[in-house]
Amino acid sequence: MSITEFDLIKRYFAVGKVSRNDVILGIGDDGAVLQVPHGKELVVSIDTLVAGIHFPEDTDPESIGYKAIAVNLSDMAAMGAEPAWATLSLTLPEADHNWLRAFSQGFFDLADQFNVQLVGGDTCRGPLSVTVQLHGFVNTGEALRRDTARPGDLIYVTGTLGDAGLALAIKQGKFAALQKGYEYLLQRLDRPVPRISEGLGLHGVAHAVIDISDGLASDLGHIIEASHVGATLYAGKIPVSPVFESYRKVIGENTWIDMAISSGDDYELCFTINPESQDMLHKRLPNIRYTNIGEINTSSGLRCVLENGYELVPASSGYDHFRGQ
Amino acid sequence: MSITEFDLIKRYFAVGKVSRNDVILGIGDDGAVLQVPHGKELVVSIDTLVAGIHFPEDTDPESIGYKAIAVNLSDMAAMGAEPAWATLSLTLPEADHNWLRAFSQGFFDLADQFNVQLVGGDTCRGPLSVTVQLHGFVNTGEALRRDTARPGDLIYVTGTLGDAGLALAIKQGKFAALQKGYEYLLQRLDRPVPRISEGLGLHGVAHAVIDISDGLASDLGHIIEASHVGATLYAGKIPVSPVFESYRKVIGENTWIDMAISSGDDYELCFTINPESQDMLHKRLPNIRYTNIGEINTSSGLRCVLENGYELVPASSGYDHFRGQ
Repeated sequence: MSITEFDLIKRYFAVGKVSRNDVILGIGDDGAVLQVPHGKELVVSIDTLVAGIHFPEDTDPESIGYKAIAVNLSDMAAMGAEPAWATLSLTLPEADHNWLRAFSQGFFDLADQFNVQLVGGDTCRGPLSVTVQLHGFVNTGEALRRDTARPGDLIYVTGTLGDAGLALAIKQGKFAALQKGYEYLLQRLDRPVPRISEGLGLHGVAHAVIDISDGLASDLGHIIEASHVGATLYAGKIPVSPVFESYRKVIGENTWIDMAISSGDDYELCFTINPESQDMLHKRLPNIRYTNIGEINTSSGLRCVLENGYELVPASSGYDHFRGQ
Repeated sequence: MSITEFDLIKRYFAVGKVSRNDVILGIGDDGAVLQVPHGKELVVSIDTLVAGIHFPEDTDPESIGYKAIAVNLSDMAAMGAEPAWATLSLTLPEADHNWLRAFSQGFFDLADQFNVQLVGGDTCRGPLSVTVQLHGFVNTGEALRRDTARPGDLIYVTGTLGDAGLALAIKQGKFAALQKGYEYLLQRLDRPVPRISEGLGLHGVAHAVIDISDGLASDLGHIIEASHVGATLYAGKIPVSPVFESYRKVIGENTWIDMAISSGDDYELCFTINPESQDMLHKRLPNIRYTNIGEINTSSGLRCVLENGYELVPASSGYDHFRGQ
């Protein structure tokens, strides 16, 4: 089996269904040429997924393709941006056609769904690694940021937390899977749904927004550090799925709630609003679960209060690639 | 030695001297927020360098940092774009402070020089790999492309060819280094000078432009394929440096000229112009050597004519990551 880099790109990466008017020149030159609409600012995010670090080596390639773009779409959601263009840098041990076909399928399934066009990229040989950069738009001056939380704000999260972390812990052999719901957990780990429409809905409502990639404690930590405020979380209010709930006794109360608070990869949004904005919030997020889990205050640091009144110290404040070296 | 990802970014990657007015929000949120000037189109390029593939494992980190941004600046030059913003995704086996300091130095030396601000990125643990994405501007409709060469055009290259390929061949033990000029060759391999001002000078003069990253034969091949034309090169006209010239006998005539034509990493520009534009070209590129090496014609394919009238078939049409697997 022999394939040139050029053929590889043509066969597997020039196959997206999206063809945007603002792409003047797409794949195939030294650079893409793109037109940002008048009155809009450009939002750019970049994320790399490395085999064995961000996903287990045996992850199916369709899920890798899906997730590589999903994590960047989640960043767009957290900025309140409308996604538009992607670039992809793919490092592969070998040009395996079945792998490439499945990867491409996962990638474009999600890209097409969110009207994202792949406009350029780079492929080379080496240890498996995927870098996606995404470009989107916000109205000038309206990007949602993490440094704008205010004392008195209520803290919300979309969806439920902990499913992806639980799935990973089971895959790593830390817990045995219960018969019911394991497929759901895997889906949550491998196929997170980017909260794009929710991010767009938060304009003019939310003060600070972040996506939960490293775990609630860690990512809310970024909000309070950037905003120079503190936060109190109520463990009993953390929203979890019925499947996650079913592991409560298996895992043990404290480890279980810590998993919901500390584990990453859920790609839900965490945001803060003025208490008076709750009515407006209900109108803006009609189709998704969202839950008030605490409040922003003036004291520094993050406190997590258990239902018995004790404070939980999260086992980890989220995944850090270089900590404890 | 322990460092968090956050500290690592602050210490080594929030240290550039450039602070651009069009960066609304830089490093530190889920995405950067950027303002493309009115009347300009955005040009985007992305390139990954993998240790052991794009550079020998023992390359000094300062050169890796330099080259990671240099190869993308070269793409900007080939598009006739003015560079503006960079993002960086860095995968590292470990957080080695000496390595990071040197890498950062090499990266920002060049970024600062070309008024490029690092606006975002990602760091993680894994096999050493560097992905840089660069963003620049062109006036609306004026990007320099590779699909616009016309029959009758003269083909030019900037600078000299073959130095980087020769340096790499010596490093790989294929040839012994001559005493004189080896430092110069290494400099050409590790520290290519992006031809940004030359790219900007080619607006309104050049028909088609590409940068020579994979070798002249390969990259000119992209021009003729995209433009649906053919080309004739004259081997005797290929510009080479005095150091490269000194290897002529050591390497042997045909292998030597093939190296100038086929080896990559020179990051010079190859472009085509109407013969009537030669006077204008002299005004536009006052400070650099540039050489007419052939012409575009209507027959398909690339021919390279030797000084004795025979045709040279290049040993390789440039580096391809997946060919011959």
